[in-house]
Amino acid sequence: MSNQPKNLQVGKNVVIHADVRMGDNVTIGDNTVIYSGTEIGNEVEIGANCVLGIIPGGNQRMRKTGTDRAPLRIGNGTKIGHLVSIYSGTTLESYNFIGDHASIRENVRIGKETVIGRAALVELNTTIGDRCTIQTLVYVTGDTTIEDRVFIGPCVSMSNDKYMGAKNYSMKGPHIRTEAKIGNNASLLPDVTIGEKTIVGAGAVVTKDTENGVIVTGVPAKVLKEGNEAE
Amino acid sequence: MSNQPKNLQVGKNVVIHADVRMGDNVTIGDNTVIYSGTEIGNEVEIGANCVLGIIPGGNQRMRKTGTDRAPLRIGNGTKIGHLVSIYSGTTLESYNFIGDHASIRENVRIGKETVIGRAALVELNTTIGDRCTIQTLVYVTGDTTIEDRVFIGPCVSMSNDKYMGAKNYSMKGPHIRTEAKIGNNASLLPDVTIGEKTIVGAGAVVTKDTENGVIVTGVPAKVLKEGNEAE
Amino acid sequence: MSNQPKNLQVGKNVVIHADVRMGDNVTIGDNTVIYSGTEIGNEVEIGANCVLGIIPGGNQRMRKTGTDRAPLRIGNGTKIGHLVSIYSGTTLESYNFIGDHASIRENVRIGKETVIGRAALVELNTTIGDRCTIQTLVYVTGDTTIEDRVFIGPCVSMSNDKYMGAKNYSMKGPHIRTEAKIGNNASLLPDVTIGEKTIVGAGAVVTKDTENGVIVTGVPAKVLKEGNEAE
Repeated sequence: MSNQPKNLQVGKNVVIHADVRMGDNVTIGDNTVIYSGTEIGNEVEIGANCVLGIIPGGNQRMRKTGTDRAPLRIGNGTKIGHLVSIYSGTTLESYNFIGDHASIRENVRIGKETVIGRAALVELNTTIGDRCTIQTLVYVTGDTTIEDRVFIGPCVSMSNDKYMGAKNYSMKGPHIRTEAKIGNNASLLPDVTIGEKTIVGAGAVVTKDTENGVIVTGVPAKVLKEGNEAE
Repeated sequence: MSNQPKNLQVGKNVVIHADVRMGDNVTIGDNTVIYSGTEIGNEVEIGANCVLGIIPGGNQRMRKTGTDRAPLRIGNGTKIGHLVSIYSGTTLESYNFIGDHASIRENVRIGKETVIGRAALVELNTTIGDRCTIQTLVYVTGDTTIEDRVFIGPCVSMSNDKYMGAKNYSMKGPHIRTEAKIGNNASLLPDVTIGEKTIVGAGAVVTKDTENGVIVTGVPAKVLKEGNEAE
Repeated sequence: MSNQPKNLQVGKNVVIHADVRMGDNVTIGDNTVIYSGTEIGNEVEIGANCVLGIIPGGNQRMRKTGTDRAPLRIGNGTKIGHLVSIYSGTTLESYNFIGDHASIRENVRIGKETVIGRAALVELNTTIGDRCTIQTLVYVTGDTTIEDRVFIGPCVSMSNDKYMGAKNYSMKGPHIRTEAKIGNNASLLPDVTIGEKTIVGAGAVVTKDTENGVIVTGVPAKVLKEGNEAE
């Protein structure tokens, strides 16, 4: 990054607050708002009507993350669609694609060449690896770990609160291991582990950990077939 | 409210139409649009790129509500995220939190200290009580009643049209009683009642009324266990 | 259309790029962005903070459609809500209604008098017929065919990739025939056909083709009852 970015293209009515750092060859669409402290790498493309670098707020009934002061970092070559919201305290490493209407909260780390689909929502304190595909309208709950090359089909839902607000529970989302595939509209319960290369069928409700390399389907999800491709 | 609000902070490119009333210590983010008649209380925070106080329109195939002339009222201490849309004819009482990308239609009443999650959608003619948690991507259909301290997990879906457009039916959404908890991605059918303190499992499809204080799971949902905590 | 449209009403901070064609009596809300080439018919109403006529981009891991040069065409009498995104290469014929927060990608064709619900997402290469109701938060995957007078309940999910990214597969979404009705939060798998006047129950997971005029429910969906209303 430099203080004098080359080839910066900024649309109309864009609001760039103080102390935003830009790399070279950055494009920003019309009516987008970028809050203070945001760091934008080289060759980044940002769509119209986005809100980026949001400082977490919340009310007295919501969790605080303590990362309020870290910036949003958008790595080289990342493309961000239109009408997207992303919080400060989050890092998108490089060459990621963030679809229109998507929203990513604070204290999230996304690796390289990952696709976050349109209107997908990623909650706080979550890590997503490299070359993942998180499809349209997926809900990635807070405190979730998604390893590399995971495929999550459209409308998959996750939760991280075993007691649904009733007890003082340390939130824990799913842990989805490398190359797992989750079918569309499946539901993953708090703290379940999806094994490496495991396949979860569409509409399945996963209530407990799965082995590596299996196929699980149904409500609640049961093993349909032992796989033989996992290491 | 006063004609000369104190400490009003308005972002850039904000469009405030005629006859908007403001309390003291109101903050409005960049690029937000507020339509005529909207009433905003004290200590209200509104994010960027929102559209508030929308006059209901629709086309000839959609219902009219007859509330076109009532304003949107945003009560004291309410926080509204970014990229949110809310219609006129709706009242948010006080100290509510409305997440980013959420949308609330006309003729809705929301009590106090309730959280409406990110990208949650609340349809017309619906009442939501105090201290409820409506999580991310929940769909609250029209003509729904949600009492106090209800917890609705992410991606829960509801419907209000028993005949799916086929008959002339008076729409009726679910009635969710006090302190009920609905697991993520569950589906509630038109006109079902969820009993007080009842728990609906993740991914369940609730096709008929449930008793108070029970746990129901599965497709269709059946009683897993009688509870003993309900009054 | 004419070069001098009559009664054009444009809000504040609207960004209209070069070569946008307008009919008469068009209304455009505040802070909306309209990209080059877009063609807007007569009596079209567009809400605030929309982004219309987006040129498809994507990254190297996403499909190209080859329709980058076709415009977005918005037919007469269409109403578009607030915070909506629609891509170039798509045609909305006439008198359609597109809800707030909805998103429609490139190379889509929507007939006449169809309702696309709030926050519904329609992917590329899809055809939707006349007088359909696609409700709130429905996900219409790419390469899908929806015939006339189809009703799709809230939060219905579809997928088009049988191998979830694992094989080189020609994507194929569902084919939903005339007057079929899909219950809320149902899941449709790739390449399934839903028969004419068939009803899919709420929360059902449809894994294979259905006959005309039947009712299917459950996970996986099975025939509940033979219908007798289909031709």
